Amino acid sequence: MGGDHGPVVTVPAALDFVSKYEDVRVILVGLEAEIRTFLSNDVNGRISVLHATEVVAMDEPPALALRSKKDSSMRVAINLVKQGEADACVSAGNTGALMAISRFVLKMLPGIDRPAICAILPTAKGHTHVLDLGANVDCSPEHLLQFGIMGASLVGAIEHKDRPTVGILNIGEEDIKGNDVVKRAAELLRESGLNFVGNVEGDGIYKGEAEVVVCDGFVGNVALKASEGLAQMLATFLRQEFKRNLLTKFVALIAMPVLKNFRKHVDHRRYNGATLLGLKGIVVKSHGSADVFSFSNALGRAAEEARTGVLQRITERVALQQPLPESA
Amino acid sequence: MGGDHGPVVTVPAALDFVSKYEDVRVILVGLEAEIRTFLSNDVNGRISVLHATEVVAMDEPPALALRSKKDSSMRVAINLVKQGEADACVSAGNTGALMAISRFVLKMLPGIDRPAICAILPTAKGHTHVLDLGANVDCSPEHLLQFGIMGASLVGAIEHKDRPTVGILNIGEEDIKGNDVVKRAAELLRESGLNFVGNVEGDGIYKGEAEVVVCDGFVGNVALKASEGLAQMLATFLRQEFKRNLLTKFVALIAMPVLKNFRKHVDHRRYNGATLLGLKGIVVKSHGSADVFSFSNALGRAAEEARTGVLQRITERVALQQPLPESA
Repeated sequence: MGGDHGPVVTVPAALDFVSKYEDVRVILVGLEAEIRTFLSNDVNGRISVLHATEVVAMDEPPALALRSKKDSSMRVAINLVKQGEADACVSAGNTGALMAISRFVLKMLPGIDRPAICAILPTAKGHTHVLDLGANVDCSPEHLLQFGIMGASLVGAIEHKDRPTVGILNIGEEDIKGNDVVKRAAELLRESGLNFVGNVEGDGIYKGEAEVVVCDGFVGNVALKASEGLAQMLATFLRQEFKRNLLTKFVALIAMPVLKNFRKHVDHRRYNGATLLGLKGIVVKSHGSADVFSFSNALGRAAEEARTGVLQRITERVALQQPLPESA
Repeated sequence: MGGDHGPVVTVPAALDFVSKYEDVRVILVGLEAEIRTFLSNDVNGRISVLHATEVVAMDEPPALALRSKKDSSMRVAINLVKQGEADACVSAGNTGALMAISRFVLKMLPGIDRPAICAILPTAKGHTHVLDLGANVDCSPEHLLQFGIMGASLVGAIEHKDRPTVGILNIGEEDIKGNDVVKRAAELLRESGLNFVGNVEGDGIYKGEAEVVVCDGFVGNVALKASEGLAQMLATFLRQEFKRNLLTKFVALIAMPVLKNFRKHVDHRRYNGATLLGLKGIVVKSHGSADVFSFSNALGRAAEEARTGVLQRITERVALQQPLPESA
């Protein structure tokens, strides 16, 4: 029940979610009294509330949240996944804490060393999955290979694709480009049996050059946030131009439907829900500032991952890969 | 005389440049006959032509260009800087070759281990300088410190600022975030006497959180190209929406002046001209696809750097810093 807004967003999002998916149930974990304030009665028993006494703050150090808050909503929700009482956990809370608690409670899938954060980005051709986006600041070539396997398994399951294309984020298209880790990772990916398409440059992400783009968490995080920052700046400038004077405001009124369609096309809320891949359980991280539409989409994403058996698919694919090269 | 377009762009850009700056002269280096085709006669003797028999191809391996093309336009132009016959060299050609030849011919400034590519990006507050954007895929903390010193010296000289703010690109605002290299570099920058403002996240670049943003060439290149790719994608989507049908095309006509103002505000051509910093000479790299307006701006940038004594300023600032920590 975290995120920047809390139950005022997450509860209506859960209501929206169960109205869209017939076969789902939601357990809202958190401060029960607060949650009930936002919960209407007519939900056909498909939404229940589980009380948790503690809350992980958005800026709380992950290690502290892990050690000291055994009854936080986050911990209790992840425990439900561990115990098989829930198929997935969705949170808009503290990313670091969600990662630390998930990893501690759920453990890693066999053959996967590190979890990775995988998100969807829009492209000229549709969308792409990029991972890791910040869980790992230093990665070995073997970790990047594992990210490729997990990303391809995820896209394979959710989008019903046999062999989604996988690329590695680099600073040139030629094989000789990049640092040693990326070059070695490209070799491993090439030998892996995945549908590896080679190097993807920063702009290649948005050109849709691969359905899965692999990178270390430092580079991925910077690329993602730089993109967010640029998009925000452009939106602000565009708004300023249309608000400049009476005439431009009039033009804005006329152009509104077109601008709205444009915004819909690139609405990041449609892509809300980053998956914490590599764990023995489905955990989806919503953007902290998510609104109802956005958080409902993250719930939908988690449901799809459970329904299409993403974890099973990763496990099988990793087993195929055995023996994996020794991890650094 | 390189770039994607050659003299058809660079020669008119030179004419435009000398018409804007009263005290400059341009030596056009390349295939003389071809250059003269685009050169009108009335340039008051401020534009001359120096014949060079060879051309470095855009996709030529830098090492090959360096070894085998002693009479390429690039090599001859850089030699002019070395010999003191030109104050700066501007090229729209092969970046890797320009870097390799510049480094070989001009050598590094004392106290600087590696050259860095520094470019200007627009921000919500104006603009910022980011380096390195691709010259170095692996950097030590000491290299990043040197980039900070060079960037601050450049901005200090060109923008007449005493102590421009310097940030380091990272994946969180807290000191504990990031990898070991970035954390150590932040310590060095904090002790350096520069106006260091700490970590800047990807979106912080465009929020204008620092006037100089330091990063390694891999991360910087990915962030820059991802930004370019996103901007292109958004422009394409916006164009598509306005071209959807007769009505939206009519709306586009009405909205055109507003959209043009918007485009002017974020026109990357205004920011054309990345500086190869750290060399004993001014070398500016124009975007390969630059048009006349854009290439003229790169020439203007080189002239400003020469006029404001950027090299002198870097040299003095590095000397202040001595003894620099041992390079890794």
